[in-house]
Amino acid sequence: MRILGVDPGSVKTGIGIIDVQGNHLRHVHHAMIRTGKGDFDERLHILFAGLSEIISAFKPETAAIEDVFVSKNVSSALKLGQARGALVAACGFHGLRVAPYSPTNVKQAVVGYGRADKDQIGHMVRMLLHPPEPCPEDAADALAVAICHAHHSPMQKLARK
Amino acid sequence: MRILGVDPGSVKTGIGIIDVQGNHLRHVHHAMIRTGKGDFDERLHILFAGLSEIISAFKPETAAIEDVFVSKNVSSALKLGQARGALVAACGFHGLRVAPYSPTNVKQAVVGYGRADKDQIGHMVRMLLHPPEPCPEDAADALAVAICHAHHSPMQKLARK
Repeated sequence: MRILGVDPGSVKTGIGIIDVQGNHLRHVHHAMIRTGKGDFDERLHILFAGLSEIISAFKPETAAIEDVFVSKNVSSALKLGQARGALVAACGFHGLRVAPYSPTNVKQAVVGYGRADKDQIGHMVRMLLHPPEPCPEDAADALAVAICHAHHSPMQKLARK
Repeated sequence: MRILGVDPGSVKTGIGIIDVQGNHLRHVHHAMIRTGKGDFDERLHILFAGLSEIISAFKPETAAIEDVFVSKNVSSALKLGQARGALVAACGFHGLRVAPYSPTNVKQAVVGYGRADKDQIGHMVRMLLHPPEPCPEDAADALAVAICHAHHSPMQKLARK
């Protein structure tokens, strides 16, 4: 099973793709979509088009995206919300269902500890996947989201039976 | 010029399409996209697909979308933001640039008063466009966004010269 993981952001979005066979995880691709500092609606188009291109190229079978969580203020929630909306739309356009995970779910799945910091996530992603080139922080987070989905998917299937 | 207007919402989104020739405005279409109460990411797909279908059918040349404005809380900002993000992505997918207008811009353009209420907007939209069938409130708002864009577009062109 090929899994797409997305760590959404309105300035930079991390993308990670892994293959899962039984208990084995394999790194396939990671990337950053950087939207620049232009017009905000233009940045949403860049997110949609960027993710759409990656889905077309790598053909993941399932997708997982981190739930956005903003405690700061309404204005940043609106921005981050719009970024996530454009990214979920890109998945839907390609017929991909999206599983949402909270940051705590992701940390728990990858590090075994819901309050792990970014460095620990990066360390575990390198240990588990051995990416061939250095992985920017948000791309590591996206790979972590994909790993989290890999851990949850079999359980979800069992739960539905 | 054919203009698409969008009044974004995560539960119901209003859509309005008008034709503009000189000072003459003509009602072309209005609709509501209702997303139901299912899974939130599924609702974002419905918004993207619904708007995408309308754009394919009516082929507007330009689009305007109301800026989301939420004073209440971060959670509703995240929901409304995601809805707007999926809708802007649908416009971008069809090569439509999106002009953003604040609710005050829209009211000012349609009623001449930035604090006009929903009833006044509905009244002016009926007066200006004579929609052939009754127009739900959010569809009237979307037509108002399109009218606002019609008023602003020539000025924007002049300003660029």
